[in-house]
Amino acid sequence: MKLCMIGKRGHAYYVFESIREVPGIELPCVSSGCGDDPEPLLKMARDNGFQPEFRADWKAMLDEFRPDVLCIDGPFELHAEMCAEALKRNINVFCEKPIALTLEQFENIRAAYEKSSARIVSMVGLRYEPTFYQAHKMVCAGAVGKIKTVRAQKSYRLGTRPDFYKHRATYGGTIPWVGSHALDWILWFSGSDFESVSAIQTTEDNFGNGDLEIAAHCQFRMKSGVLASAGIDYLRPAAAPTHGDDRVRVAGTEGVIEVRGGKIHYIGKNGEQVIAPETPDRRLFSDCLLELAGGRPGLVSDDETFKLTHACLLAQKAADTGTTIFF
Amino acid sequence: MKLCMIGKRGHAYYVFESIREVPGIELPCVSSGCGDDPEPLLKMARDNGFQPEFRADWKAMLDEFRPDVLCIDGPFELHAEMCAEALKRNINVFCEKPIALTLEQFENIRAAYEKSSARIVSMVGLRYEPTFYQAHKMVCAGAVGKIKTVRAQKSYRLGTRPDFYKHRATYGGTIPWVGSHALDWILWFSGSDFESVSAIQTTEDNFGNGDLEIAAHCQFRMKSGVLASAGIDYLRPAAAPTHGDDRVRVAGTEGVIEVRGGKIHYIGKNGEQVIAPETPDRRLFSDCLLELAGGRPGLVSDDETFKLTHACLLAQKAADTGTTIFF
Repeated sequence: MKLCMIGKRGHAYYVFESIREVPGIELPCVSSGCGDDPEPLLKMARDNGFQPEFRADWKAMLDEFRPDVLCIDGPFELHAEMCAEALKRNINVFCEKPIALTLEQFENIRAAYEKSSARIVSMVGLRYEPTFYQAHKMVCAGAVGKIKTVRAQKSYRLGTRPDFYKHRATYGGTIPWVGSHALDWILWFSGSDFESVSAIQTTEDNFGNGDLEIAAHCQFRMKSGVLASAGIDYLRPAAAPTHGDDRVRVAGTEGVIEVRGGKIHYIGKNGEQVIAPETPDRRLFSDCLLELAGGRPGLVSDDETFKLTHACLLAQKAADTGTTIFF
Repeated sequence: MKLCMIGKRGHAYYVFESIREVPGIELPCVSSGCGDDPEPLLKMARDNGFQPEFRADWKAMLDEFRPDVLCIDGPFELHAEMCAEALKRNINVFCEKPIALTLEQFENIRAAYEKSSARIVSMVGLRYEPTFYQAHKMVCAGAVGKIKTVRAQKSYRLGTRPDFYKHRATYGGTIPWVGSHALDWILWFSGSDFESVSAIQTTEDNFGNGDLEIAAHCQFRMKSGVLASAGIDYLRPAAAPTHGDDRVRVAGTEGVIEVRGGKIHYIGKNGEQVIAPETPDRRLFSDCLLELAGGRPGLVSDDETFKLTHACLLAQKAADTGTTIFF
């Protein structure tokens, strides 16, 4: 399979975590998709044993190299156009989330997808983190009985961020950018579609970061009746032991499972257990590509990619407008 | 001071935790306020060295004994009437929360309060739990800087509950009954009034408990701009090590403090610390009564009692109607 890559503003490194697990993969060319210096991406490729060419014009790259798969991690505001252009060429898409920053962009991708034979998956890499992966397996195996409520948390260090984070048009917003992981856990663990959302967010006291929301909360009713919420913030202190405090708590009729502090905390019929997870038997990039090559189905479907993106954008709209929105 | 008591359906035992710290306190009479067997309340009084009389007619008790303070813990649906009748007689009220199950009941109490010289406090006993008490002191001392977000959790074992829990009219609902603690932490830690609320709840899979909501989520914007939410459920497994999994996480511009698992988890400038709290220097009942007797101001004000009750009822209304409600 032939891969091209655009940019490394976000999590393009997922590619190189597992690219060697994809037999016969080639990386003939990369682009930065904008004025970004291409050297960091080229260096990451070289460090992993690839010698791609570089093209400033990403569309020309697609036409010249005709890749099977395109990794999209350029400017956030160009994700949607790049997805649509790839899909129009029947090139499979592996895109940083969220794949669209506006509902209009989202509809453009969906329209292109409907006419395409290609697939699209966004980088929901936290599904593959050992704790979340194993907790999800336990939930699927019935560890908590019928799921009633899911509560997720994403708390990041703010640090110093590039200027594009300061503008809604180029950053997209904290609910889509940070919250997408939490919303993905809600979608994935509940195994149900979103029914309604209300949300709140604030840009106040954001340490001079313009439009960037320093905190947000989202609250969802799922079609199955599951209640869910996400707390999202950039308030994790610089001195905290890790960058992120990622959590999900799933409570059901027969137990409660929580991922917190890199461990699984489970309470079932036999009391409380703390479980150190095993290493997952799959990784995001190779999982997607091996499915494309006809292998085992991956963890992330095209349908979920669209549903997650839509949920991020409607949650943000709910927060922007102060209304409850139905899907 | 002369105390009378009505019922022990909820937390009347708070009285006896610290009654001996109130100089000269007398307990001449109790009532169950309904058809409940009065013996458990009489026994609790005797076990604590009091020999109260019993009256079946609680209003007659008020007129006969003219207490300074009335502890109200009878049927939930009579809290409001009992509060109003006590206030009309200028008897101070120490009432199980929520003090009212409907907005109409709430307005009746407020009307009686406005014409009364007496005070009213509800049993927000968890403010006096060592972890919450000390965490609140730390927040007031600036441990997290300017507060941006508060996330609270109440998760209880369901167990087997009396029949009155099965009916909204006699139980009130899970947001007011269980959630009131979480909403009180939000009010108390944020130090701000509620501005708006949206909420969701479900009675499905409630193990045959009629109207009882097995889970609920509430999301608040505070007038100060603080974002807050509460997750509330009865899904804590019977085999869990404790009855409740009570948590609050307060994140601000300079730190994060969390009460969880009976400890305080604090991250500030110097990294993460786990703090075992000291024993508080006050307890709910005596704190209120000593203030009434002219001593140190207590932790809970009349104003907060009304604001908390109002928040519980509006959150429930938001969940019942699927709307966002402004205070």
